[in-house]
Amino acid sequence: MKESDYLKTLERGINVIKSFQHAPHLTISESAKICGLSRPVTRRVLLTLQKLGYATSRDGKFSLTPRMLSLGYSYLFSLNIWETATPSLEALSEKIQESSSLCKLDDTEVVYVARVPVNKIMSHSLAIGTRLPAYATSMGKVLLAYSTNEQIDRYFQKAELKPFTDKTIIEEEKIREELKNIRQNGWAFSRDQLEIGLMSIAAPVRDVRGEVVAAVNCSTHSGRSSREKVEKEFLPLLLEAAESISKSIDFEIF
Amino acid sequence: MKESDYLKTLERGINVIKSFQHAPHLTISESAKICGLSRPVTRRVLLTLQKLGYATSRDGKFSLTPRMLSLGYSYLFSLNIWETATPSLEALSEKIQESSSLCKLDDTEVVYVARVPVNKIMSHSLAIGTRLPAYATSMGKVLLAYSTNEQIDRYFQKAELKPFTDKTIIEEEKIREELKNIRQNGWAFSRDQLEIGLMSIAAPVRDVRGEVVAAVNCSTHSGRSSREKVEKEFLPLLLEAAESISKSIDFEIF
Repeated sequence: MKESDYLKTLERGINVIKSFQHAPHLTISESAKICGLSRPVTRRVLLTLQKLGYATSRDGKFSLTPRMLSLGYSYLFSLNIWETATPSLEALSEKIQESSSLCKLDDTEVVYVARVPVNKIMSHSLAIGTRLPAYATSMGKVLLAYSTNEQIDRYFQKAELKPFTDKTIIEEEKIREELKNIRQNGWAFSRDQLEIGLMSIAAPVRDVRGEVVAAVNCSTHSGRSSREKVEKEFLPLLLEAAESISKSIDFEIF
Repeated sequence: MKESDYLKTLERGINVIKSFQHAPHLTISESAKICGLSRPVTRRVLLTLQKLGYATSRDGKFSLTPRMLSLGYSYLFSLNIWETATPSLEALSEKIQESSSLCKLDDTEVVYVARVPVNKIMSHSLAIGTRLPAYATSMGKVLLAYSTNEQIDRYFQKAELKPFTDKTIIEEEKIREELKNIRQNGWAFSRDQLEIGLMSIAAPVRDVRGEVVAAVNCSTHSGRSSREKVEKEFLPLLLEAAESISKSIDFEIF
């Protein structure tokens, strides 16, 4: 793209919005500091967001409004995720009494785009929009396994492989080996990678062209399940859910 | 605000993002038409969003990426909604085996900012980010009931009161009367307003200053509950959840 096509103001607006991930209320100066922008620029962004109903202010502090959700949901609505994936996730979660999720890959991370939690301890810590590093999750490994070699190479150039537990696999060669196995098996198993005791399996979701566009998973804890139970009882139901979601995607997802 | 402070580019960027609520893939011309913008302006917005990772393109069509969720979630993360409200909603839903939600008011509509669905028919049709007209929902009426007289007057100037069923109350005077009763009772009951058979009760959530900043509700269907059951069994648990969420909000929400 030509430099003249790039809208610096739009980038700045997005950065100011994201500065509120740090605190619910920010002064112009605080937001400016987080964004690395000048105070006058940040001020104009915040006043414009306020005028449009996406921000509000009181006593010199700004905060975002619930209208902000409509931007993130432009994406979910565009995928029609509530009609295509949620019923299958709900059916899966009800059968196995464990939480299930749908993720997409964004840069080096997986992003939760749908999730059906089951009321258990730890169940509400992952919400839609949550991002996790791909190498440490079953869904991330599925999405990498079905990427092109070029994409995988780029992933390893960019990703920072650091351990979350003493079991986290952070050796590039070991992860590459695992990706090959996942592609052969058609599903991924993950254990103790993000947190000791956490187990999950994931399978690919394909769009109408047959391309892997998302991953579906279910997760459990070694306190209430075993690898044997996961593979014997959960896996067939997970693969069934993945197929049913794939069938319901009647358009191409990029 | 001075006109020179208003960033037209930011408004245009937001409008282009929202154009994808109509379809998952749009050409530049399609998006331009939806937004009422020129093709060159829309093109620059889409190329900028693509450069920033919020949009992607193929074969001349653009679509949003999962990164878009991080904007909407800047708002939810800023409220720390997962730690403050979700545990109380989960406890409520588990006890009554019905879905529960948290809403905030935005202009004339309520916006779902947290929700714990229970696996039943109709349970997945309302997601976070969903917007419903305030006058036709129990949460909307609670939020209006605790607004200032000036805000209520402005609401009725702006809101378009139209029936969803033949039971929907659309007379301004009747709604105003109901708002007074709600404020006296401390909770709202709604039935058949959006859909025949749909029943819900809602209660106010207060921030650390004691100001009503959100509403919590639970909903059921006349096929499996009665008004008596809702008031006798659900209401005390709902009020308990509202109080527990209020206590967990240890900062001011505007």
